[in-house]
Amino acid sequence: MSLSVELLAFTPEPDKVVAASARLCYSDVSACSLKEGMDERKSEKLLEHLLKSGHMSPFEHVAFTFAMDGLSRVCTHQLVRHRLASYSQQSQRYVLMGNPQVVVPPSIAEDAALRERYMEMVQKSFDTYKLLVESGVPKEDARYILPHSWETRIVVTMNARELHHFFGLRLCKRAQWEIREVARRMLALAREKAPMIFNMAGPACVVSGKCKEATSCGNPYTTVEEVLADVLDF
Amino acid sequence: MSLSVELLAFTPEPDKVVAASARLCYSDVSACSLKEGMDERKSEKLLEHLLKSGHMSPFEHVAFTFAMDGLSRVCTHQLVRHRLASYSQQSQRYVLMGNPQVVVPPSIAEDAALRERYMEMVQKSFDTYKLLVESGVPKEDARYILPHSWETRIVVTMNARELHHFFGLRLCKRAQWEIREVARRMLALAREKAPMIFNMAGPACVVSGKCKEATSCGNPYTTVEEVLADVLDF
Amino acid sequence: MSLSVELLAFTPEPDKVVAASARLCYSDVSACSLKEGMDERKSEKLLEHLLKSGHMSPFEHVAFTFAMDGLSRVCTHQLVRHRLASYSQQSQRYVLMGNPQVVVPPSIAEDAALRERYMEMVQKSFDTYKLLVESGVPKEDARYILPHSWETRIVVTMNARELHHFFGLRLCKRAQWEIREVARRMLALAREKAPMIFNMAGPACVVSGKCKEATSCGNPYTTVEEVLADVLDF
Amino acid sequence: MSLSVELLAFTPEPDKVVAASARLCYSDVSACSLKEGMDERKSEKLLEHLLKSGHMSPFEHVAFTFAMDGLSRVCTHQLVRHRLASYSQQSQRYVLMGNPQVVVPPSIAEDAALRERYMEMVQKSFDTYKLLVESGVPKEDARYILPHSWETRIVVTMNARELHHFFGLRLCKRAQWEIREVARRMLALAREKAPMIFNMAGPACVVSGKCKEATSCGNPYTTVEEVLADVLDF
Repeated sequence: MSLSVELLAFTPEPDKVVAASARLCYSDVSACSLKEGMDERKSEKLLEHLLKSGHMSPFEHVAFTFAMDGLSRVCTHQLVRHRLASYSQQSQRYVLMGNPQVVVPPSIAEDAALRERYMEMVQKSFDTYKLLVESGVPKEDARYILPHSWETRIVVTMNARELHHFFGLRLCKRAQWEIREVARRMLALAREKAPMIFNMAGPACVVSGKCKEATSCGNPYTTVEEVLADVLDF
Repeated sequence: MSLSVELLAFTPEPDKVVAASARLCYSDVSACSLKEGMDERKSEKLLEHLLKSGHMSPFEHVAFTFAMDGLSRVCTHQLVRHRLASYSQQSQRYVLMGNPQVVVPPSIAEDAALRERYMEMVQKSFDTYKLLVESGVPKEDARYILPHSWETRIVVTMNARELHHFFGLRLCKRAQWEIREVARRMLALAREKAPMIFNMAGPACVVSGKCKEATSCGNPYTTVEEVLADVLDF
Repeated sequence: MSLSVELLAFTPEPDKVVAASARLCYSDVSACSLKEGMDERKSEKLLEHLLKSGHMSPFEHVAFTFAMDGLSRVCTHQLVRHRLASYSQQSQRYVLMGNPQVVVPPSIAEDAALRERYMEMVQKSFDTYKLLVESGVPKEDARYILPHSWETRIVVTMNARELHHFFGLRLCKRAQWEIREVARRMLALAREKAPMIFNMAGPACVVSGKCKEATSCGNPYTTVEEVLADVLDF
Repeated sequence: MSLSVELLAFTPEPDKVVAASARLCYSDVSACSLKEGMDERKSEKLLEHLLKSGHMSPFEHVAFTFAMDGLSRVCTHQLVRHRLASYSQQSQRYVLMGNPQVVVPPSIAEDAALRERYMEMVQKSFDTYKLLVESGVPKEDARYILPHSWETRIVVTMNARELHHFFGLRLCKRAQWEIREVARRMLALAREKAPMIFNMAGPACVVSGKCKEATSCGNPYTTVEEVLADVLDF
């Protein structure tokens, strides 16, 4: 298996829902007629204003749900640290692990000898897992011997405000490559459905033109397009 | 104006999305093919199992957004105490209040003399508000004289897990009548779109057959249908 | 009554707890010996680094609990919108309101005629409340006629990360005067107990030297001391 | 190393703070004089009432911070799924892993042959980790080969409401043994400081006398003391 990120569900007409909710706050319009009379141009102006001034709460009204396969438990351990989100992850307590399926870091994959050594260890770990299970050790205990690289599957829901925050942290070049690639694909998928909301998304270098890290990467992105084009295969 | 609650947006196919996410946790299926091969009967069984055993996390993957007009600030002050939700409310700082529009509690409305006295006070409060604004007092300060009953408008998003929690508290007969009626309408709207998810929703008397309040109302509901039929006009 | 904000409880040695937690992340030290060997100078350097680089999660390990009297329900409606916090508020459903006790906005208080008109309305509203209660209307319904200015009491707990966020929004000169004064007192109390944590707290103009508002107030603060000296009596 | 859980910090006088906050909601007392006149007997009655009727919000005003060493990343991956909590975890991205230090599940430890095989694999994984690091692979990538059992260190803060929820789930006999033992130690430490708050804490079998699991363990606890005595060494 290799990394796969798909959009399982999302709030329909996301740009319109956010613009309508924001409009309620500042004008004398009834909530129930909000979506009427919002033309596209006005919505775009309004969303741009919200993003620039940091008034992010209307972005919470729309959410995106991603289905992900083939990411490591290193990556999901980082991912689930984002608490304003919802997760359903495949359980290693209940599901028997089949053949070895692991993520190989590019820094290892690119060196044939290291890669061989790595894969050999993965196979040995898996053989031990199988032996333990066959000896009567519960699956939930046998998995303690599996490596962090072991692949997992997860469904993730975040609203658009949290996605902006998540993209800010995880698309930064100082984030780890695996979660960066996951974030990149999430942004590509979400932006297709909500171009206005995610027009200005990504790390601080892109959004505000100014790095916030203590130690900068020295090679900042300049546009969202550049972020999206920075594909990492593994 | 009178109370109006409408569904502004919701995650499409909510029953299916929750069932698919739950299925990932316990079976060896890829996340990206989750929605395939889920028949309706299996989904229903699965959701019923989740609700009965209290495994509520998959219900977080779907959300409902309600647009509300004509509720009092008494009610929204209670509403916004639910923190696992998102709100956009019409601002009394920026929007000039027009004619007096207030909620009249049924216990007052049903007595002609009390109602008259109440409405008279509302009018006087509003006259003072107008006078203050005309005297140069900022809108945000003048509103300090408006009564709690003053109507407001709000957009509310909750996911299905939080909705279950909210319905449990706010459809109880010991909750205040105004937020109960708001909750009743929310349940009616959500249940229409997600019949499996909200098949067993409402106060503890309905969901578990057992009151959890320290002092019971003495007259519990027995079915969701009964909850939904208990309309309050105001 | 007039506004009163006191510190009801807080995590002891807050500066030290935050510094120790942060230190765990980046160095090979056991969690259980964290507080040993942290000298004050090192802690200060570390906290300064965290604040500057925006690595705020260690600040969540310490919390402050404030007891507040004499603030209006306008103010608490704004306050409870901060969802990463805990609240216990005096209930108008259960507690009978005694004599009229209201917040008077400075813009009204400073004009004798307006103030008189305002207080007259407050008294009339309260007379109506009393009449309603004496006529058998439940307290929870009678209060619909009380003005927004009515005083309330609340206990509020926030951790230091959320406090930083709260101070950023609510000490801005564009925030409303009442919640600004509440926030100012909270900062003064918290800073006394945790000088390193709250050394650089307040609106963007103070923290980053750059306004983030769409429309600036035109008269930014320059230091925390200036923020703390900007007392508002009401 | 073996599991170590210590109390790093906590809100002083936790029983009193919760009781005082709860008292504010329902009686005509000023927030700033809350702690006066609360005798121990009244506090105990009040907390018991809150716990029995499920009015848990006052329990949010007090928090406990635990420093933990020697737990596996299997366990912390489960732990950090609790989102109403704060975490600072030792980073495998930045800290070089020294000698092999792993958790050995009891089901493996009790069988000498399995244990030997397990430890052998741990050593080989670590040798590969070292080789990778020495070959120039970044620490953050080399760790992909380390097993899930690898020990980590974490600081965890939860408020008393979340702790009740956490104990309800994680002290159940159907929870995994490692997080159960972590939870047992947390309860023992917290209960010593807040005997009234944690007098009735633990899984549903203890708190409500009735299992909520779809499949019961068949051997429920009956008292908190029994839960606390159920020590697991590993």
